Amino acid sequence: MPILNKDMTLCISLSARPSNNGTRFHNFLYEALGLNWIYKAFAPTDLANAIAGVRGLGIRGCAVSMPYKEEVIPLVDRMDASAAAIDSVNTIVNDAGVLTAYNTDYTAIAQLIERNAIDPASSVLLRGSGGMAKATAAAFRDAGFSRVTVVARNEKLGQSLAGLYGFAWQPDSEAVLRDSTADVIVNVTPIGMAGGPESGSLSFPEEAVAAARVVFDVVALPAETPLIKAGRAAGKAVISGAEVATIQALEQFVLYTGITPTPEQVAAAEEFTRAQ
Amino acid sequence: MPILNKDMTLCISLSARPSNNGTRFHNFLYEALGLNWIYKAFAPTDLANAIAGVRGLGIRGCAVSMPYKEEVIPLVDRMDASAAAIDSVNTIVNDAGVLTAYNTDYTAIAQLIERNAIDPASSVLLRGSGGMAKATAAAFRDAGFSRVTVVARNEKLGQSLAGLYGFAWQPDSEAVLRDSTADVIVNVTPIGMAGGPESGSLSFPEEAVAAARVVFDVVALPAETPLIKAGRAAGKAVISGAEVATIQALEQFVLYTGITPTPEQVAAAEEFTRAQ
Repeated sequence: MPILNKDMTLCISLSARPSNNGTRFHNFLYEALGLNWIYKAFAPTDLANAIAGVRGLGIRGCAVSMPYKEEVIPLVDRMDASAAAIDSVNTIVNDAGVLTAYNTDYTAIAQLIERNAIDPASSVLLRGSGGMAKATAAAFRDAGFSRVTVVARNEKLGQSLAGLYGFAWQPDSEAVLRDSTADVIVNVTPIGMAGGPESGSLSFPEEAVAAARVVFDVVALPAETPLIKAGRAAGKAVISGAEVATIQALEQFVLYTGITPTPEQVAAAEEFTRAQ
Repeated sequence: MPILNKDMTLCISLSARPSNNGTRFHNFLYEALGLNWIYKAFAPTDLANAIAGVRGLGIRGCAVSMPYKEEVIPLVDRMDASAAAIDSVNTIVNDAGVLTAYNTDYTAIAQLIERNAIDPASSVLLRGSGGMAKATAAAFRDAGFSRVTVVARNEKLGQSLAGLYGFAWQPDSEAVLRDSTADVIVNVTPIGMAGGPESGSLSFPEEAVAAARVVFDVVALPAETPLIKAGRAAGKAVISGAEVATIQALEQFVLYTGITPTPEQVAAAEEFTRAQ
C-alpha cells in the first residue's frame, strides 16, 4: 500500500446513503494522473458541521447528494449560475476559504443537449418532477427550448416544475404517454432504475419511442435501461443517464483539480468505478 | 494503488506545521492489521471549524499539536484525567458524537516512569517550561515524586510551572546545572533537537550526567540526542524522547481503534515512520 502522506489534498462527498462511485472514480483518476490527492465519501451527522469542516480542514472539493442539495445553499459563499438556475447544489469548490456552489448535473445535461445538436424548436416530453427533473427542465429552457411538456405522477410537483420554467403540464396517464408526438422524450423518473421497484419497466410506451427522434433517459444505473434499449432497437438517437453521470463527475473533477483527463483516462475510471 | 473506499474510518491530526510522522505511523498499522481506516494530517485554517468537521463528518480520532493543545479545550465534551491533569489536549476520541480529550504525552511519560521503576524518593532536576514540561512535571508529581526542581530559561514560565506542581525552582545557570546532584535529570527544552539552533548541544553538562542515575530526554528527534548519547556513554539508565513519542502514538492508536498492535508491529511502524 502506498501510504498516505500529510500533503494530500482531500475531496469528499456528503450524502445520507453514499455509494462508492465517487470514491472510486476520483481516486482512480488521481492515481492515473499522479496527483497527491484523496477522495472519500461521508454520511454526515450534521450538515452545517460538515461544511464547517470543509472550511476548517481546507477540504478542496465536496460533492453534495440527497438530501442535502438545497439545505446546503445558505452554508456556501457563492452560487455559480449552474446551481442558481435550479436552486440545487451538487458540488462545492473551496478556494482559500471561499465556498462556491455548482450543479454539474445541470451542466452535464446542458452539454449533452448541445453535443447531440438537438434542435431547440423540437417538442419535448419530460416525465418526472424530482431534483433531476429541475436540472433537466432548466437545461432545456436555457438551451432555448420552449415546446416542453412536463408529465408527472406527482401532480403538484409536476405543475410547479412546469410553471417554474414556463412549460406546459399534463397529468401522467397511459393515454398521454401513448399518444405522444414529442420529438424528444426524456425520463427523469426512477422507472428502469436498477434495484428499484420498477427496474424492469419501460418509462415511455413503445408508441412514444416510435414517434420520437431522440430518447433521453436520466437513469444512470443500469447504463442500458429498458428505455435506452428500446430507443436503440428503434434506431433513435439515445442519450443515457450513464453519460450524464460521467460528465457530471468529470466536471467535478475538473472544478476541483483544474485538470481535464483524456477520454481514455475517463473511460478507464468509469470501467473501474463499475467493477465493484 | 488499493483505491480508497467510502466505508473507511478517518482519523486526522491538527497542527500548524504538521509532520508526516502520524500519517505514516497510523496508516502503516492500519495496513498491517487489515483495518479499513485512513489517517491524514491537516493544518487547519480555523480550529473551531475543524472540530465541527470532526463532529459533522464523524471523524473517529483527532491528534492535536501545537498551537492548539489548550485552545481546543472548550470545543470538546469531556476531559479525560490525562488531559485535565495538565489542561492540555493532544488526542480527541469521537464516540458517536461525544468528543473526549486525552493527553497521551502525559500517559506515555507516566508509563515510562513506571516501567523504569524510578524510585519516587529520587531527586529530579527538570529543565524546561514549555508544553511538554507541564506533562512531564505532572507525571512525576502524580507518580509521587516531591523532590523535583524546575530550571528554566524563561523565569516566569519556570516559576509558574514549579508553583503549579509544588516543586522548587531555580534560575537556569551554568552553575546550577553543573553542580546538580539530582538522581534523575530530565530535559524538556528543545536543546539537542534535530534542525533546531541547538541541535548539537548537550542539555545538561557532563557533571550533571555523571551525578545522575537516570537520564531522561523528551526530545524525540533524533532518537540519540547528545544527552542520550552522553547518558549511555556514562553507563546511566536512559529514557529517550523517541520512546515517549512511540508510546504516545501507540496510546492514540489504541484509543481510536481499541486494538493493541504487537511490539513487532509497533517496531515496524516506527521504522517505517523514520524511513522518510
